[in-house]
Amino acid sequence: MEDIRVYFIGDSYVNGTGDPEYLGWPGRACAASRSDASSITCYNLGIRGDTSTDVLRRWEREVASRRLIPHDGRVVFGFGANDCWILEGKSRVERTDTIRNTEQILSRARSLFPTLMVGPPPGIDESEDARRQEMSALIREIAGRAGVPYLEVIKELRAEGVWQREAALGDRIHPAEGGYSSLAKLVLAWPQWWFHETQRR
Amino acid sequence: MEDIRVYFIGDSYVNGTGDPEYLGWPGRACAASRSDASSITCYNLGIRGDTSTDVLRRWEREVASRRLIPHDGRVVFGFGANDCWILEGKSRVERTDTIRNTEQILSRARSLFPTLMVGPPPGIDESEDARRQEMSALIREIAGRAGVPYLEVIKELRAEGVWQREAALGDRIHPAEGGYSSLAKLVLAWPQWWFHETQRR
Repeated sequence: MEDIRVYFIGDSYVNGTGDPEYLGWPGRACAASRSDASSITCYNLGIRGDTSTDVLRRWEREVASRRLIPHDGRVVFGFGANDCWILEGKSRVERTDTIRNTEQILSRARSLFPTLMVGPPPGIDESEDARRQEMSALIREIAGRAGVPYLEVIKELRAEGVWQREAALGDRIHPAEGGYSSLAKLVLAWPQWWFHETQRR
Repeated sequence: MEDIRVYFIGDSYVNGTGDPEYLGWPGRACAASRSDASSITCYNLGIRGDTSTDVLRRWEREVASRRLIPHDGRVVFGFGANDCWILEGKSRVERTDTIRNTEQILSRARSLFPTLMVGPPPGIDESEDARRQEMSALIREIAGRAGVPYLEVIKELRAEGVWQREAALGDRIHPAEGGYSSLAKLVLAWPQWWFHETQRR
């Protein structure tokens, strides 16, 4: 049996904050992807509030502490929403820094592991959502240059509506189980996701 | 609403390895403990194979990366089983080192956060289980001296039987959802656990 370890690295959306079932999308994606042929260990390294600057600072050390050669390791990033969060009138991370951080993270990760990236989800307020759409487009570009498959989720989640309805009923930032479940479905339907029904016994 | 962040730090049993539902006991304990009065963020910092030496090396830095003053932070440790794992004829960690590591971890944690510790679960083989029983008794002593509440689970889990039945059907080390669910129930029934029905609205 293949022994696969997946490191999910990013912000509160990776952590699954607000999910009363405590799975987030990583837990749901792993549960749906395991099979008799491969055991999947889920390491959820999402941290509330993390920006690309925070992720750059810690991701490699945290993965190194968890990595056990020769076991298979794969990395999935999810950040960006906190970079464009407005604090005291300006973005928490300047655009040029987001670009540099993300380039460094993705190019280094790709040299070490099969790597994927999932984009930021919708924001509740219109201006918040507009900033996240821009951020998602920016990361798509950077990921494309780095050769890392990128899943844009902001439009689909906004169109579907569950994410924002739940966030509006909660802390106005995080959804509940329905929103995370929707995001997990997008990941599972993504051709670049590593685990598909047809590959499984 | 109170915003509580709980750091679960330890080995594969904290990670929930083998649980097809990807909750482990920390996810189950958090899901059962949340209420309208307090949101609980779960940071699962369990790492497969980690000994007390590994935990000592990393725990404080990993918590520091996740801690957001003034939000409430609480720590739960679960390690010991890997310390007494026999590799090439001897324990992975010598008894004197386990004692020193555990003392350092618990006294430091207790000076910073409300801290709890959960003992190692049963082993499948008799000799493995005997070593874990000794380890559990040793950690109980150390935790007692450090003033950290300690939950011994090895006897109850062995008596109940689900843990070992599932582990025997799996990789002979980790149970499935039933074993982790049993462990979560012991944690939830523990008077020292921070969140109880009567405290909740």
